[in-house]
Amino acid sequence: MSGDAIIARLRAAIGTDQVLEPAVAGDRYRADFSGANPCSPRAVVRPTSTTDLVQIMRICSAAAQPVVVQGGLTGLAGGATPQPGEIAISMERMSGIENMDADSMTATVLAGTPLETVQRAAAAEGLMFPLDLGARGSCTIGGTIATNAGGNQVIRFGMMRNLVLGLEAVLADGTVVTSMNRMLKNNAGYDLKQLFIGTEGTLGIVTRAVLRLWPRQDSRVTAMVALQGFAQAVALLRLAQQHLSGSLSAFEAMWASYYDFVIANIPSLRSPFDASHPMTVLIEAEAADDAANHAAMERLLEEALEQGLIVDAAIAQSERDVSRFWAIRDGIGEVRRLIKPHCSFDISIAISAMPGFLERVDGELAAAFPAVRTLVFGHLGDNNLHLAVTTGHADDLPRLNDIVFAATADAAGSVAAEHGVGVLRRPYLHHARNQVEIDLMWRLKAALDPQGILNTGRVLPAATAEGAAIDCQGNS
Amino acid sequence: MSGDAIIARLRAAIGTDQVLEPAVAGDRYRADFSGANPCSPRAVVRPTSTTDLVQIMRICSAAAQPVVVQGGLTGLAGGATPQPGEIAISMERMSGIENMDADSMTATVLAGTPLETVQRAAAAEGLMFPLDLGARGSCTIGGTIATNAGGNQVIRFGMMRNLVLGLEAVLADGTVVTSMNRMLKNNAGYDLKQLFIGTEGTLGIVTRAVLRLWPRQDSRVTAMVALQGFAQAVALLRLAQQHLSGSLSAFEAMWASYYDFVIANIPSLRSPFDASHPMTVLIEAEAADDAANHAAMERLLEEALEQGLIVDAAIAQSERDVSRFWAIRDGIGEVRRLIKPHCSFDISIAISAMPGFLERVDGELAAAFPAVRTLVFGHLGDNNLHLAVTTGHADDLPRLNDIVFAATADAAGSVAAEHGVGVLRRPYLHHARNQVEIDLMWRLKAALDPQGILNTGRVLPAATAEGAAIDCQGNS
Repeated sequence: MSGDAIIARLRAAIGTDQVLEPAVAGDRYRADFSGANPCSPRAVVRPTSTTDLVQIMRICSAAAQPVVVQGGLTGLAGGATPQPGEIAISMERMSGIENMDADSMTATVLAGTPLETVQRAAAAEGLMFPLDLGARGSCTIGGTIATNAGGNQVIRFGMMRNLVLGLEAVLADGTVVTSMNRMLKNNAGYDLKQLFIGTEGTLGIVTRAVLRLWPRQDSRVTAMVALQGFAQAVALLRLAQQHLSGSLSAFEAMWASYYDFVIANIPSLRSPFDASHPMTVLIEAEAADDAANHAAMERLLEEALEQGLIVDAAIAQSERDVSRFWAIRDGIGEVRRLIKPHCSFDISIAISAMPGFLERVDGELAAAFPAVRTLVFGHLGDNNLHLAVTTGHADDLPRLNDIVFAATADAAGSVAAEHGVGVLRRPYLHHARNQVEIDLMWRLKAALDPQGILNTGRVLPAATAEGAAIDCQGNS
Repeated sequence: MSGDAIIARLRAAIGTDQVLEPAVAGDRYRADFSGANPCSPRAVVRPTSTTDLVQIMRICSAAAQPVVVQGGLTGLAGGATPQPGEIAISMERMSGIENMDADSMTATVLAGTPLETVQRAAAAEGLMFPLDLGARGSCTIGGTIATNAGGNQVIRFGMMRNLVLGLEAVLADGTVVTSMNRMLKNNAGYDLKQLFIGTEGTLGIVTRAVLRLWPRQDSRVTAMVALQGFAQAVALLRLAQQHLSGSLSAFEAMWASYYDFVIANIPSLRSPFDASHPMTVLIEAEAADDAANHAAMERLLEEALEQGLIVDAAIAQSERDVSRFWAIRDGIGEVRRLIKPHCSFDISIAISAMPGFLERVDGELAAAFPAVRTLVFGHLGDNNLHLAVTTGHADDLPRLNDIVFAATADAAGSVAAEHGVGVLRRPYLHHARNQVEIDLMWRLKAALDPQGILNTGRVLPAATAEGAAIDCQGNS
């Protein structure tokens, strides 16, 4: 069917102003936050309801018209960036909170609702929605479900998968799967929501969700500690999980390669320590009682000092200190501007395999590129490492990717821990998953989207070899 | 193919003594713990490795021979009970811990390993595997994965789904899906393990798993509190989640219908309270520091008293007290013997819908059966209610089921919260899931087991109406 014919049909079905042609849509829908490979969609459709979306998918399905789904466009893997010939479905008009149930501690929300809107609505009820990440103001609940978003509190609350109780999704053929479970325990049949969490829109389009909320925690205690190395950090992690029990909400490890670089290069940052240390960890605990929370953190640090696990420690005495500590961890945003061009990795590795992995990567990178610089930090408790690697030369980026991903594969790690696969990680998926797994993913794709019109070209490697678009800048 | 021919082929493939004929196998493999509809399998095969199981499934697949998978046979839903003509695959010889990684806090285990074996191995490393349920000595890890087992600590650690990082499964055609992820964060492609968790062996047979461990918690504080009603219990739940933060590990609510009955009828039980109260709750918190843990519980109870949420409270002063408190909660085992015949329900309902649900059920049951007795208790924080209902007459059981499940459906609840669907709950699945959901489950079943040889007749309702075997005694 011609583009004009489809657009006319979509307009007739859901209204003229819900369907934008590229010239009208402008740049907004041409790329996600990675900025890689921007491309104008054939049209942008903006459903206001599940009913609209059903009509859209029936029309696209009948015409075998490929679509790409867009939430807040804050992804870093190119997944929401249109590919030639696709129609973009923007979920921005399906925004709003349908229901806040304080007794059941659930929120029912539309997929296009920004994360921060949900966080605020929960707070207004004395509750908390614990998913949190930098893009909170723009990223949508649907997007965080589709990508199984992580962030800073995963060690305590898990990823988005653990925070979704139920959802509604529209399949490629327009079928509405309404599975709005509100209970923590429900084993009545297959847990179908799992098909739509973390599958990046390739199996269905999430339209609504039931989210799990927690009581708000009024006390936060944040500490920065200096350590002599990785083994001490691992021992400290276990001690922190014991002492802070279920209150431990962040355990952010920064190797000296990262820590010293951001302190030296970002003028606004101040370290709480005078000396440089092989490793620094930001620890945070949230609880109800401020005195008890502080006492637990102090007991932890005393015990860690006694055991020789840490060499220095600072507990934030004010909100300003908390911000100062987190600013060092969040310096990665600035790093991205300071060391262009670079490859930025979002990998995960079992903790026991990390030392070997890092030693190998350091060795191989240094052998291949004597002037290489590798900054390492990560959510240690979640097995998630972020590496920023640069030689100063864009030509070296593919080789840097190959070295790091090969080591990741040999450590049985993941090439996409929390940022998703999208388009940019897709050529590397086989480093993290075997062929039987990939075949089984294709079996699911074929069962749910036999024409392959939903976010095709994302996540799943092509059946045949192909030259995928790789953009090292954007894949952080 | 004749039974003899298949048995000969299986023996040739995996060894004669791995294949038992019914006369040799005896009663052991004829029914799960429900005891409902016992049936001898055509043969019992006992693989000792994934390779054995691949051979078994290739042979059965080639012959379109249906199989039933058996773990510890402790299920209550009839799922592991053979149906006529099935071969039983017992996982009992695939037992053992392959790897304990204390730094990564993971255990890699074979599917036939008893839960208690894993708990003990974790404890030996100063760690904890938090799944816990009465059948811990017999139930297997594979079975707890297949049924997404729950238990007493779900409020803190989640169900089995949250405790499995990776797994290996064998599909109906003998394909081995090895997806042994060890990381908390891994978004590299579809999370295939979800296909095998809670699907009760209908999509594949779990052979190995990577489990998540936690640091051991040395302090446990247990309290029993008396309340004036449900609204107070809900307010107390939220207060407990605030005050005990992440330490809250159990919140077991007992209505007077249950509490007063077990105190009156089980001679070994002693209530810590003199009077009868509309509701009693057992609260438990686990943490590292005993003094701080007790202080937090005391602060919680003081605050609850001040707010008028509780009317009486007792904190366990000894392990003997802890056992006494839990014995009241666990009195349900004895109840099953005391009030035969009865229907026993394992349902879940959003908390805000519980009062309306209970009022309706009480009203309809009393109207239909003036002499009805309904005992109610449950894991309130998990939305999970257990009801035991009896009129004293077996003839009334189907009607009792209908009344309770219809009310569950109207409250958007689940007919199978933690015990699974199996065979016994299968006729009621449509009360908890809509037709589009059931169709989608079938689409998955067809994609993974096109011949329908794996645990067929479990979970999924038949495409056409049928008279399913219902056994009210066994379905608790």
